[in-house]
Amino acid sequence: MGGDRGPSEVISGVVAASKELKNAFFILVGDEKEITGPALFGGLDVSRFSVVGTSDVVLMEDDPLTVIRHKPDSSMVKGLNMLASGEGDSIVSTGNTGALFTGATLIVRKIKGVLRPAIAGVLPLENPVLLLDSGANVTASADYLAQFAVMGSIYMQKVLGVQSPRVGLLNNGSEPHKGTELQTEAFRLISSLPGINFSGNVEADKLCSDVCDVVVTDGFTGNILLKSYEGMGRFAIKSIRDIYEKDLLTKTSALLIKKRFAGLKKRMDPGEYGGAPFLGLSKPVIKAHGASDANAVKNAIKQAVSYTLSGAVVSMAKEIRKFAPEQSVQKESGQPQNGGSVAK
Amino acid sequence: MGGDRGPSEVISGVVAASKELKNAFFILVGDEKEITGPALFGGLDVSRFSVVGTSDVVLMEDDPLTVIRHKPDSSMVKGLNMLASGEGDSIVSTGNTGALFTGATLIVRKIKGVLRPAIAGVLPLENPVLLLDSGANVTASADYLAQFAVMGSIYMQKVLGVQSPRVGLLNNGSEPHKGTELQTEAFRLISSLPGINFSGNVEADKLCSDVCDVVVTDGFTGNILLKSYEGMGRFAIKSIRDIYEKDLLTKTSALLIKKRFAGLKKRMDPGEYGGAPFLGLSKPVIKAHGASDANAVKNAIKQAVSYTLSGAVVSMAKEIRKFAPEQSVQKESGQPQNGGSVAK
Repeated sequence: MGGDRGPSEVISGVVAASKELKNAFFILVGDEKEITGPALFGGLDVSRFSVVGTSDVVLMEDDPLTVIRHKPDSSMVKGLNMLASGEGDSIVSTGNTGALFTGATLIVRKIKGVLRPAIAGVLPLENPVLLLDSGANVTASADYLAQFAVMGSIYMQKVLGVQSPRVGLLNNGSEPHKGTELQTEAFRLISSLPGINFSGNVEADKLCSDVCDVVVTDGFTGNILLKSYEGMGRFAIKSIRDIYEKDLLTKTSALLIKKRFAGLKKRMDPGEYGGAPFLGLSKPVIKAHGASDANAVKNAIKQAVSYTLSGAVVSMAKEIRKFAPEQSVQKESGQPQNGGSVAK
Repeated sequence: MGGDRGPSEVISGVVAASKELKNAFFILVGDEKEITGPALFGGLDVSRFSVVGTSDVVLMEDDPLTVIRHKPDSSMVKGLNMLASGEGDSIVSTGNTGALFTGATLIVRKIKGVLRPAIAGVLPLENPVLLLDSGANVTASADYLAQFAVMGSIYMQKVLGVQSPRVGLLNNGSEPHKGTELQTEAFRLISSLPGINFSGNVEADKLCSDVCDVVVTDGFTGNILLKSYEGMGRFAIKSIRDIYEKDLLTKTSALLIKKRFAGLKKRMDPGEYGGAPFLGLSKPVIKAHGASDANAVKNAIKQAVSYTLSGAVVSMAKEIRKFAPEQSVQKESGQPQNGGSVAK
């Protein structure tokens, strides 16, 4: 129910996903009147979906904790409860990021030993880079960042098929002493992690140059980084379009260039990479961009299925248990903090 | 001496600047042998320049404090000393950013009442945005950010001619409660500043949409933001070039589009906006990008002259004195911290 384009766009995405994922079963949670119409209209195979009606709606400006406590009959809270109780294997939402993150942490629960789950956004580059935390935890400790390195590495390997993913630490310079205390301590911790292919400190402009597959940072900095890339990407696309609109000499060349341009635009579109998974939870939760079109919703659903089938959650649980020192587990807190502001 | 392209490129920039700035006098500080050859060769009017020879060289990997203490006969330290003693009105350097920032703070000195000088980079957008701090102070207090707002606003008005510049606070959301303690406290402080046209919190992707003229943040986040924009800009330019190289149908259309493309490339080139001024010092110090070509050096020199003639330093001194509470002045520290890593 939370997408900027309304439920019908989301349902078009579900229909498209159902055609590619022949074994998946879809549960649509939301306002029954609004869902049932477009769903049937879209030609979805009725034996492979069900509708769970809800009466309440989460707004973009709602405070996360208020949503969880006072809107149990919203599509978001109902969906998360169904996921937690085993009525589903994964969930995709286009709604309020902060509420989804807080709700997922409280209702779906963290993997044992995980200090903080993280939002893992994708930088839309030639070689996509997984960025965590993209905005959930505005402050972070070095322990969190070390766990993000473990979880991001497993996700990249198991779900996206990258062998021995290179993990970078976002910093303002490449030398080990660079950054604030957070970065120098995280550098030390991640260097000592067995099984992590650590690329060391990575500067923000180097991310375009295929220097790593995963980059870790606190949620405040991650949010700034992700939005900078998205904003500059949109600015570049707009600037190119301005050139094309002024300069096309013939219809033929216009058509030819348009096609290539569409390819570039697609490559710079975050929706092509699905949504942002929340890593560190006991079940896959995927946040699709609020502005997702049907194609982006389809990609987010495919990603949720890949995540579920990959066994990544089990691997994370195993690795985190190995890695987490006792004191880290004790520091663990149930209350998510300032629940995220990415990609609203 | 510190530019990636060597002194001859810098001197070509000086020559170009001397043709546009008829009343300026140029003092070239550096290795006399290396400077004198290309300078004369470039056709510089000899009555308008002098050369001050030095024997030592600052390396990109040098520790800032070591440079200042142990390389007094480097072009950087000598130049800063000349500026401090009144033998020049402003300085432009393409060298080690951290060393230049530390040196400028210790040798040229801060404006009275300024807690920390800041590096003011420019985001290369349709409406350029002045970003401070771009990398000098990796951690910051809300007081620093409030002073950055004052100094950036004055620079934008006096040097770049923007009437009533809009000042934004970089944050992960637009609501006043967003961000860490640093942002919420800075929001409160800047809101209360008289004479500042405060736009409130600004998200990183909104900076492309002409929402403010100046944006303030700590140096760590500023470095990430600036480098993200630069990196994504280069990635976009490269992607477009790839399209052109594959798709040009005729030489005619190629030439026509190439011209527009050059315009776009120019607009996204940080060198077009000169260098990054250090704000909060008693004299103009401009850091040009290490990779500056002659055109970027010329623009940085023109910027240094505009800054000098604008009276911005006097205005900053006046405003900071008005604004700075006694306790802030007491907190003032002589030692610059982790001197910058932007634009090396």
